[in-house]
Amino acid sequence: MNLLIASAGRRCELVKFFRTELNPFFHKIIALDINEFAPGLYFADKHYVIKKDFDNPSEYIKDILRICLDENVGHILSLVDPELVLFAENRSLFMENGITPVLSSDEAIQNTFDKYSFYEAYKGLVSVLDTCDSKEDAVEAVKSGRLQLPVIAKPRCGSGSAGITTLHYTNEFDTLKYNSSHNYIFQRKLDCREFGVDAYFDMISGEMVSVFMKEKIALRSGETDKAVSVFREDIYDEIVKLEKTGWFRGPVDLDVFLTADGKIYINEINPRFGGGYPMGHNCGVNFMKLLFNNMKGIQNTRQPNDYKLNVKMMKYNHILFVDGGHIYND
Amino acid sequence: MNLLIASAGRRCELVKFFRTELNPFFHKIIALDINEFAPGLYFADKHYVIKKDFDNPSEYIKDILRICLDENVGHILSLVDPELVLFAENRSLFMENGITPVLSSDEAIQNTFDKYSFYEAYKGLVSVLDTCDSKEDAVEAVKSGRLQLPVIAKPRCGSGSAGITTLHYTNEFDTLKYNSSHNYIFQRKLDCREFGVDAYFDMISGEMVSVFMKEKIALRSGETDKAVSVFREDIYDEIVKLEKTGWFRGPVDLDVFLTADGKIYINEINPRFGGGYPMGHNCGVNFMKLLFNNMKGIQNTRQPNDYKLNVKMMKYNHILFVDGGHIYND
Repeated sequence: MNLLIASAGRRCELVKFFRTELNPFFHKIIALDINEFAPGLYFADKHYVIKKDFDNPSEYIKDILRICLDENVGHILSLVDPELVLFAENRSLFMENGITPVLSSDEAIQNTFDKYSFYEAYKGLVSVLDTCDSKEDAVEAVKSGRLQLPVIAKPRCGSGSAGITTLHYTNEFDTLKYNSSHNYIFQRKLDCREFGVDAYFDMISGEMVSVFMKEKIALRSGETDKAVSVFREDIYDEIVKLEKTGWFRGPVDLDVFLTADGKIYINEINPRFGGGYPMGHNCGVNFMKLLFNNMKGIQNTRQPNDYKLNVKMMKYNHILFVDGGHIYND
Repeated sequence: MNLLIASAGRRCELVKFFRTELNPFFHKIIALDINEFAPGLYFADKHYVIKKDFDNPSEYIKDILRICLDENVGHILSLVDPELVLFAENRSLFMENGITPVLSSDEAIQNTFDKYSFYEAYKGLVSVLDTCDSKEDAVEAVKSGRLQLPVIAKPRCGSGSAGITTLHYTNEFDTLKYNSSHNYIFQRKLDCREFGVDAYFDMISGEMVSVFMKEKIALRSGETDKAVSVFREDIYDEIVKLEKTGWFRGPVDLDVFLTADGKIYINEINPRFGGGYPMGHNCGVNFMKLLFNNMKGIQNTRQPNDYKLNVKMMKYNHILFVDGGHIYND
């Protein structure tokens, strides 16, 4: 049975890691994207460029289903947030056709993509930042002292750093260019260190069986550009609490804040492979192996946290060249 | 004699290309950066991380000079715009010490870094977009019909896409958050195709001896992310006019607009290696070889425009790992 990766985008390393793990056992990686300029496509065993009508994605889902059946695909996963929602909506359709989406529960997906729902869902379970879901509420909270300036305004369902603004004065709440002020959430802007965590929740047991942490040193376009591998007991203890929800399955990418006085906040949870996953993989974790076990019906046990520490990691560009049928990289 | 590359940053491919060309002749590449997390450092034969006080860079220049003398460096080049100005200011100091900066003339550097000076310097020489250097002038120009909305406002000395805003209405000229309105330039926002051109001007003759063109398909953080290699006679004819100025030496990166009715505008000139240079190199141009010839005192002749056309090019991330003394990439 083969694995299909939708919205392969720029995630070339991820596709390569999967091939390294699955190809020796004659399983293939099929990559999919709507853009023929998605380099990730060309690292797969086979790829498809298909259309997607974002307002009416039923044809897109049908195309994926057809490709899955043609290519003997047993599992599918997507690498972008909006598609997690779409795949969750079509979960039973895939399952009926013998295809397992590598997906967390609907609760996990809805409550991570929407940042206010995230706050509402998690505030009793793990440490999260106080969040307001409207300009009016935020202004009120600032006046009452419940929310301190500077405040950060984020699109409620945004990805990366797009649309994020810092507000230093109360009057800026009015001058901010909103699409609609209810499409934003407002939080205190913390002066803190930031950590990226990759976690793998076993598809069968829901146990968090593997984890990798890095301290973020620099961001670029909202992605971790430079980082150092670390392990912190306090962060581990906070995120392992997520097991109790029973919501998570497969790869989960988390963003964690640590203040100078040692307070931890889980800032964001994306129930998919994070853009920085290759950092952890090269330091010693291997979510591909864990997922492959799950694909074969094997339950994983908790892995030792023995990846390499204090490794400095920095992204740089390579270029993929597609010259007719000839594909090469520099 | 060795070559020193300052502000190596993320330009790993560039460093590799230079080593490929120079190492067989026992010349080394020394890379420099102020950030130990600059991956480009680790691709060089030897690297230095040094401090830079941006307000008082004389110590930085002294450190570079010392490294050049210690490392038997004959030529230096920088990969970032502000440092071109700094190196030009210290040109004679370097020359007195037997070190040749790979640099265009002071006129070229001043008139490219500052976007209004660029307009003033080039408007009689090549086709450039009408440009206003103040809010007042721009508003006046819109009223008189000399400038059409939408208008694009750019920081006068900015790099990449930082601080660029599109103004659709006259009243937005007032609400735009200026540092100072005179630090911005204003131009018509064109609906056009965009091309990136890498040109090499012979260091001895000033002749434009090699050129590579790509049509930009997508940008990311102001850099070309996806592109297709092309050759257009009309763009060539426009940029070769720059030879007449006698200002350019070595690598030059140009940004060119082409409107639906075939009008060409040179939008930007950076007298240094562009971030997209590896695209051209892998399609067949080789500025390293041309520069190496110049380093040896050999004058280059015009190269045939025989690089590979219609190659689709797309950037993706690799990661460099620095684990103590052990350096590897994925």
